[in-house]
Amino acid sequence: MTKGNCLIACGGGPTHVINQSLVAAALEAMKNDNVGDVFAPVHGVDGIVQERFYDLKREDPRNLELVANTPGAAPGSTRTKPSEIMLEQILEVLKKRDIRTFLYNGGQDTALALKKLKDMARHIGYDEVEVHVPKTIDGDLVVNDHSIGYPSAARYVAGVFGGLNFDNMSLPGIFVGKIMGRDSGFLPAASSLGRTSERDGPHLVYLPERPQTVEQVLKDIGEVYKRLGFCLVAMSEGLRAPYENSTIPFEAALTNYLKEEYGFGIDFGRMSEDVLKKKDSFGHPELSSYPLFELLLQFALVAKYQDRVRVQALGYPQRSFLNDVSRIDVEEARLVGRKAVEYALSGKYDSGSVVLLRAPGNDYSVYTELRKLEEVAGLTKYLPDEYIGSDGKSIAPAFREYGEPLIGKLPETGFLRHEVRY
Amino acid sequence: MTKGNCLIACGGGPTHVINQSLVAAALEAMKNDNVGDVFAPVHGVDGIVQERFYDLKREDPRNLELVANTPGAAPGSTRTKPSEIMLEQILEVLKKRDIRTFLYNGGQDTALALKKLKDMARHIGYDEVEVHVPKTIDGDLVVNDHSIGYPSAARYVAGVFGGLNFDNMSLPGIFVGKIMGRDSGFLPAASSLGRTSERDGPHLVYLPERPQTVEQVLKDIGEVYKRLGFCLVAMSEGLRAPYENSTIPFEAALTNYLKEEYGFGIDFGRMSEDVLKKKDSFGHPELSSYPLFELLLQFALVAKYQDRVRVQALGYPQRSFLNDVSRIDVEEARLVGRKAVEYALSGKYDSGSVVLLRAPGNDYSVYTELRKLEEVAGLTKYLPDEYIGSDGKSIAPAFREYGEPLIGKLPETGFLRHEVRY
Repeated sequence: MTKGNCLIACGGGPTHVINQSLVAAALEAMKNDNVGDVFAPVHGVDGIVQERFYDLKREDPRNLELVANTPGAAPGSTRTKPSEIMLEQILEVLKKRDIRTFLYNGGQDTALALKKLKDMARHIGYDEVEVHVPKTIDGDLVVNDHSIGYPSAARYVAGVFGGLNFDNMSLPGIFVGKIMGRDSGFLPAASSLGRTSERDGPHLVYLPERPQTVEQVLKDIGEVYKRLGFCLVAMSEGLRAPYENSTIPFEAALTNYLKEEYGFGIDFGRMSEDVLKKKDSFGHPELSSYPLFELLLQFALVAKYQDRVRVQALGYPQRSFLNDVSRIDVEEARLVGRKAVEYALSGKYDSGSVVLLRAPGNDYSVYTELRKLEEVAGLTKYLPDEYIGSDGKSIAPAFREYGEPLIGKLPETGFLRHEVRY
Repeated sequence: MTKGNCLIACGGGPTHVINQSLVAAALEAMKNDNVGDVFAPVHGVDGIVQERFYDLKREDPRNLELVANTPGAAPGSTRTKPSEIMLEQILEVLKKRDIRTFLYNGGQDTALALKKLKDMARHIGYDEVEVHVPKTIDGDLVVNDHSIGYPSAARYVAGVFGGLNFDNMSLPGIFVGKIMGRDSGFLPAASSLGRTSERDGPHLVYLPERPQTVEQVLKDIGEVYKRLGFCLVAMSEGLRAPYENSTIPFEAALTNYLKEEYGFGIDFGRMSEDVLKKKDSFGHPELSSYPLFELLLQFALVAKYQDRVRVQALGYPQRSFLNDVSRIDVEEARLVGRKAVEYALSGKYDSGSVVLLRAPGNDYSVYTELRKLEEVAGLTKYLPDEYIGSDGKSIAPAFREYGEPLIGKLPETGFLRHEVRY
């Protein structure tokens, strides 16, 4: 490797443990005599072009450990997708600051940005190593067994549904929880990990991988509610509905349904439609940004069943709740941070993505490999068919073997078994 | 006391620890030779008139401990406010089943129902002891230092805001979290307990005790956002706005505001207005039942600031999250359950409400007393002025002394301190 400075950036939505990877990478880099400064740019690529950095060598080691323990991206993150011009600006700064190791912690979009940067660096002959450190709560990075951040988010979702299950039986009704994950159903699937008996919810799990009509969803929910007296539903924010020869977001289908059935509609008046249809800078619609989905579904369910109905989004605590994380996630976040620096400084690679793989055998263990950026960049892993029930709206038992080691043990629960009726 | 059977019921919204009180009371009752059966009615007073009970003596002791550890009300709860006729039916069943000890676990409404039942029992000369076991996540039971269930809910709220704070700084924007508590601001106040530095959110806390205009709230949020680049807001679901000589719910004021400013409105078409204006059986509007508040506020904020805005309700996990509870809350839930039985079986009282009081001195400790039902029944404790900032939209430092011992320690966090800017 070329002697020089090291830059560790964060991109995309933060997680419970992204700072663990940041700190582990920083500590590993600081051990190496060939590494000069260890910087973290303020808000990822945005901070690089602004030349705003945190100097991690100046941080007190005890404070760094507190930072590691903190949700969110401590130096700030970004949703900026760098343009060609911005990539050139970034390279200019990397050269000026003699950055020879650039670690970028993020998801598939971050890996894609890094790949473009590497292509450009090769083109101009700038010698630096670029390593993608994997992270996304959605659990949808290809090649990887799971992504860093997913176990803690999945643990939170399992704990929320584990509790909602008993709450919803206490005062029986219909409860729909909307779960993050734009494209893939790994996080919604985790809602089932708290189930300990047949009567436990979620009784229905709707996934981006299995589009559903509004009519069918309302019918499903009504049937469970009639049979059990309560119904707990896990619904992906990325659920879609069939429309002509394609699919549309489920809330668009809900809008159509409510208009046709009830003449229900929202008049946005002088509010610009642009305001309401924001996309992130990767061009993805921000599905989770408005609580319209929840409102429309609750209206549809109340209008049909006229009963106790709640539709709520689990929201940002899925990626940031302070009081509970997956222990495995913390360990693995440290592991990939450390490994990213090892690979980068080994002299064997000019770029790559650290991937996390599950070792064969009964006891859970993982190992890492460095793969080419293009194996991960811009690609999405979907929830495999084997983890989805044959009805398309439940989670298959096989998922439990996958998910349980990731989230760790949940508190044990019980229910009363001896009812007498006079 | 008169020898006979014991009934332990649950009323109102469940909590993380209501089952701890139930199980502690059941175990205590089972120790006493004067107590025959120990029953829990299915869904509170509803189950009494239907004569549906769980027979707690038949439960395996290990299973009972698992039940204690489980959120929600294991025998089921109810929002039924018993009418005169229903109270008579209840008394009939109590007599028929020889219930001589009736413990009812719930909030101020539950205490009120119990008081009415006691008045009727005295009137007809039925000899039984009735004890209210205190519970409500809102923290608003009078006389009590705090209500059982509040510490776990407050811990959850503090942990959610503790995490959101870092998430919202990572990708800066405006985030408003809506917090439970129909009438009083104890739970919204807990959002401030995760703060460790001046820049930490929540930067604004809106309480039922301090009505606000829509214009002022939007202005406040805009000012913080302009100053810091991000703004985290804790908002009570019970926030109200001034209107003529009185106040209206804040979402009603939002509806008016959006109509006037933008011509924005919702056309409910053939959906009955009744569907949308459900009240619980105590006559309280179900403020938290529709995600309309969130949608309207997000529209108003986006339209005004056109920036990254999220409004989300913390929702039912506030009272049911499986993975994390307050240790103190668990201990105290057991304490009041045990004490309720001790008071009931002491032969000294024919009725009362167990109240939890904080002992004077620096180290946190509590003790219980049995007070008259009318001291608690139907009454609401508001967040005292000394806990509210003089601006009416922040939490005063004095609240920390009150709240910290209740929620217990939160994970320690840190932030990066050494920014360099070239």
